[in-house]
Amino acid sequence: MGIRVAVAGASGYAGGELLRLIVGHPEFDLVTATAHSQAGAPVAAVHPQLTGLDLVFGATDPAVLAEADLVFLALPHGQSATLAAALPETVKVVDLGADHRLRDADAWTRYYGGAHAGAWTYGLPELPGQRAAIAESSRVAATGCYAVATILALAPLIAAGAVSAEDVVVVAASGTSGAGRAAKVHLLGSEVMGDLSAYKVGAHQHVPEIKQATGATSLSFTPVLAPMPRGILATVTARPTGTGPDPRTVLTEAYADEPFVRVLPEGTWPHTSATLGGNSCHVQVTSDVDSGRVIVSSAIDNLGKGAAGQAVQCANLMLGLPETAGLPAYGTTP
Amino acid sequence: MGIRVAVAGASGYAGGELLRLIVGHPEFDLVTATAHSQAGAPVAAVHPQLTGLDLVFGATDPAVLAEADLVFLALPHGQSATLAAALPETVKVVDLGADHRLRDADAWTRYYGGAHAGAWTYGLPELPGQRAAIAESSRVAATGCYAVATILALAPLIAAGAVSAEDVVVVAASGTSGAGRAAKVHLLGSEVMGDLSAYKVGAHQHVPEIKQATGATSLSFTPVLAPMPRGILATVTARPTGTGPDPRTVLTEAYADEPFVRVLPEGTWPHTSATLGGNSCHVQVTSDVDSGRVIVSSAIDNLGKGAAGQAVQCANLMLGLPETAGLPAYGTTP
Amino acid sequence: MGIRVAVAGASGYAGGELLRLIVGHPEFDLVTATAHSQAGAPVAAVHPQLTGLDLVFGATDPAVLAEADLVFLALPHGQSATLAAALPETVKVVDLGADHRLRDADAWTRYYGGAHAGAWTYGLPELPGQRAAIAESSRVAATGCYAVATILALAPLIAAGAVSAEDVVVVAASGTSGAGRAAKVHLLGSEVMGDLSAYKVGAHQHVPEIKQATGATSLSFTPVLAPMPRGILATVTARPTGTGPDPRTVLTEAYADEPFVRVLPEGTWPHTSATLGGNSCHVQVTSDVDSGRVIVSSAIDNLGKGAAGQAVQCANLMLGLPETAGLPAYGTTP
Amino acid sequence: MGIRVAVAGASGYAGGELLRLIVGHPEFDLVTATAHSQAGAPVAAVHPQLTGLDLVFGATDPAVLAEADLVFLALPHGQSATLAAALPETVKVVDLGADHRLRDADAWTRYYGGAHAGAWTYGLPELPGQRAAIAESSRVAATGCYAVATILALAPLIAAGAVSAEDVVVVAASGTSGAGRAAKVHLLGSEVMGDLSAYKVGAHQHVPEIKQATGATSLSFTPVLAPMPRGILATVTARPTGTGPDPRTVLTEAYADEPFVRVLPEGTWPHTSATLGGNSCHVQVTSDVDSGRVIVSSAIDNLGKGAAGQAVQCANLMLGLPETAGLPAYGTTP
Repeated sequence: MGIRVAVAGASGYAGGELLRLIVGHPEFDLVTATAHSQAGAPVAAVHPQLTGLDLVFGATDPAVLAEADLVFLALPHGQSATLAAALPETVKVVDLGADHRLRDADAWTRYYGGAHAGAWTYGLPELPGQRAAIAESSRVAATGCYAVATILALAPLIAAGAVSAEDVVVVAASGTSGAGRAAKVHLLGSEVMGDLSAYKVGAHQHVPEIKQATGATSLSFTPVLAPMPRGILATVTARPTGTGPDPRTVLTEAYADEPFVRVLPEGTWPHTSATLGGNSCHVQVTSDVDSGRVIVSSAIDNLGKGAAGQAVQCANLMLGLPETAGLPAYGTTP
Repeated sequence: MGIRVAVAGASGYAGGELLRLIVGHPEFDLVTATAHSQAGAPVAAVHPQLTGLDLVFGATDPAVLAEADLVFLALPHGQSATLAAALPETVKVVDLGADHRLRDADAWTRYYGGAHAGAWTYGLPELPGQRAAIAESSRVAATGCYAVATILALAPLIAAGAVSAEDVVVVAASGTSGAGRAAKVHLLGSEVMGDLSAYKVGAHQHVPEIKQATGATSLSFTPVLAPMPRGILATVTARPTGTGPDPRTVLTEAYADEPFVRVLPEGTWPHTSATLGGNSCHVQVTSDVDSGRVIVSSAIDNLGKGAAGQAVQCANLMLGLPETAGLPAYGTTP
Repeated sequence: MGIRVAVAGASGYAGGELLRLIVGHPEFDLVTATAHSQAGAPVAAVHPQLTGLDLVFGATDPAVLAEADLVFLALPHGQSATLAAALPETVKVVDLGADHRLRDADAWTRYYGGAHAGAWTYGLPELPGQRAAIAESSRVAATGCYAVATILALAPLIAAGAVSAEDVVVVAASGTSGAGRAAKVHLLGSEVMGDLSAYKVGAHQHVPEIKQATGATSLSFTPVLAPMPRGILATVTARPTGTGPDPRTVLTEAYADEPFVRVLPEGTWPHTSATLGGNSCHVQVTSDVDSGRVIVSSAIDNLGKGAAGQAVQCANLMLGLPETAGLPAYGTTP
Repeated sequence: MGIRVAVAGASGYAGGELLRLIVGHPEFDLVTATAHSQAGAPVAAVHPQLTGLDLVFGATDPAVLAEADLVFLALPHGQSATLAAALPETVKVVDLGADHRLRDADAWTRYYGGAHAGAWTYGLPELPGQRAAIAESSRVAATGCYAVATILALAPLIAAGAVSAEDVVVVAASGTSGAGRAAKVHLLGSEVMGDLSAYKVGAHQHVPEIKQATGATSLSFTPVLAPMPRGILATVTARPTGTGPDPRTVLTEAYADEPFVRVLPEGTWPHTSATLGGNSCHVQVTSDVDSGRVIVSSAIDNLGKGAAGQAVQCANLMLGLPETAGLPAYGTTP
């Protein structure tokens, strides 16, 4: 008899990836997968990649979810708090949404609108001390997709004094699954294939999350929509302090023992495709010849380390399982 | 101590996928992965998706391969026979190449050129009697990628007398990884994105293989190169006999107990993306309103059920393991 | 002062391409472009590729349209007849919709539903006699996108007795713009990129149109959705009569003087990308080694020769202009 | 009798686009198109989009090129100088290569290697005074593709004192045609589809060109390869001076009379797809909420305004033709 897990909001892309990881997990038993408008539909009718999985979406009923040992919430922003409040404290919860990521209530309201639900333990095990904090928590807020790609590139450099916390500039491009599964004209295949465009320029909601986790004091973040289903490539640039340690050494040491974050061999740059379907983050760093800026490139699968993979990694820690259980270390490429 | 497996010719796309499956397989220990021009290179330098795998390509040395319990050959056509001959009979071999698929030496010479190396057990467990034959063999020839998508759609229908073996017409489109990893202008991203084109029209080498496995007596096969990395969608049409059983019933019964072949619910058509990274084949069938032809649509991942997945499935049978061991049942989608 | 043209239903993909061709046409003045829900919006807000075009969508008002010399109708199926009836006979009309393509009212009702509006001159100038017929007509029904790719491949072969009119088998793949611009989940970029799937299998509405134009008596047609914005590749196979002329000679002679249809040099196969943005159709033919079937491959831009380009070509003929006026002969590739 | 133009190095992607523009140009007669290894091949065999163009590649013979009024050089870097020296001064020359872009010989040697060939008039008409300079020149160096996207976004802002010339940070993503047509494994469709990766990080050769044209004193530039055939999206960020004019006003005024550069309506962000096949550059600007950085997004077709379109625009000026002659103002989208 395995550990009983449930997924609320399983009809979206992150939800589908969660289900794929859960049914392949050696210790997890899937109790229920709930959906809103799709309740009653076979899971495989919504997620054709799960054809063969004999399961029907349930309604999002706290009483059913409460039978699980751990519940993943993959709900739209603003819906997690109410549901979480209806679950007993003995049920562990990992929230893939943004509701509980920020400690600063003002920042929450400014970027997301509405009332702040309060912060949970931030679900990024690779941050100093965070692995233990997650293991002891019954409520964990998994990271934003852009946020994790940026934080893993930046946090050790600021912490080590290698780069300035001021005037960090990030441009990050994401595959379209990051924009969700709602039917919108600007997300049609005819619109996105062959196209790059920036959006939410100058005011993306992951900015306060990145600042909170890295200590950056000033951050310009520009997201770009890229013509591919999955993947995030973040280009993170910061000014060197001039007095700090070598950036590549800092990153190499920070991630030496990490199972999922890889600093690539010198001269090799991250490819998002290499992370597809896995939970890995690939990182490389150099100094710009002209400006001297430190430039870090990091690649993740936005549905892997950027969402479902990250959530399972946190759940493993919360449940006392091996951190890598059920998580693909390698990408499905080409 | 697991079962010792080796891969010869591991630097191509099928080789990379084989390595991914092998290192994730619960019973396999990877002894060596060999390459020709890439011998001596780190595996992750060639396959960035395997970053973190601490392995260097070896030269293709029969003495080293002979230390394995089972060797996968992922070599270019025409190179398997010599290498296989240098391996002791006690070493089991699965050949992903075409060298040993055909029983008809004339057909081999006509479509591939050169001398025929002789036929091995054909590696498609879903054919009647073939599962047992594979389990008893020490030499198995895995199927061609287009062949398996077509055969799974067609073989039960001809066998059941539902469709005529004459005048089968197949049009099948493949992602570009099916064309291999050699640097060729017509396979550049700039050329293939946004493009569909037919190739080898009227004379594709999988025709004799499909005829051998299905009993089709006359077969038109047109392959199309599609702008995606992976996946094959085969549209297989055949004339109904008029006296046979219902095609959908035939396929449903044929695959009722198969773990990897799924006849989809009525009205649902296969998507190649739903098979990405897995070993599944999705199938649907209907009758054309105007012509009465039976039309079967089947989707696979050309590197999964079309190559590496199929090979591991055969290896599992040959080694007495559960047939599904180490094989993803579900796709990595979107 | 040029010829006054108008477009009704200009907010879709075919409408946008029509506008692009019209504003680049040496003889056309665009009087109005109308839209339904987008009436009042700047054209460039809907079609960003037309940024710089200082025009606002009008409502679809017959009185305004009647001020044009020629009106293009790019409306959803079933809406052309009413609007056309409200336009005086002195206003020439090219309908890009299906309403007036079929002579067989039963076939119309069977495939489209609703009452048949009656047939107009069929807008394919490359059919024998049709160029003159179009030139003399004030009402022309432009072809379906799949239909034109298939008809140009097939019609001369049946007419010349090179292939049988019975048991024609066609599999044709289209880019996603052929599915229109309505916001639907299955057309999202995340769903279609990396994916091929068949749809409307066994009962596509272009079948009666193709039969009407080619004389085919029995036709199996399977459409496939391909991961690219534009382009149709049709694989058209038919049984040789055995007594007819050489298929390649037939096609070469049929299109010797055509400005837009090109039979490629032997050994060269059509690429949809080579037709992108133009009005051309590329064709190649061979005989299948195994079955003897004649296999024709034809490529068009579904929004070019498959829709807007075709419509402008017809308009040019109806207005006594050079047939090629304003129509790109070449593709925008890569 | 039109103006006689020739293209040297016409077998690459920029060369193919040049040929497409030239044969559609109302005033140009194409004298010859030369190629190196492809000399003697039909143009349409190399550029299938030009099927129907009855032309064979010539060898690159200065005597033949000298018969033209204007020669476009689309050669690999380092090959233009020798050929240009062999052409009489009466033959006007537009060089699409990098050989004559930089005034700083040291910068040339540092970024390109080899001896500096000397600077020609820089071919960006939208820079102050440059339109007249180009019109009076017989030798013009067209811009780099990344350079033009960046310069058009940045130059007016620095010139107006709206942003600082120090610490400009640019991340720009390009479609694969920007990487050329040489057969390389990392440019295969299987590798680039579904992938984003940075390259030449910290040391791209367009840096000195951008600095020369904009007055930027310190510039970090990171290029990214994107999974699409064409298009560049540049994200250009700079620190506001705090004392300068409003950035959006600056750009709007700078480009008010430009036929090809469009500042989009507020809230609308550039899409590369909207520029496909045309010579336009779309621009938008805002201020980052958190950092205050000015962020400009600019989109071009790398083969249009980034190469062949730009070159034709310069040629038009040099020849006293209307600047927009033969240049598509609108994109081919979707």
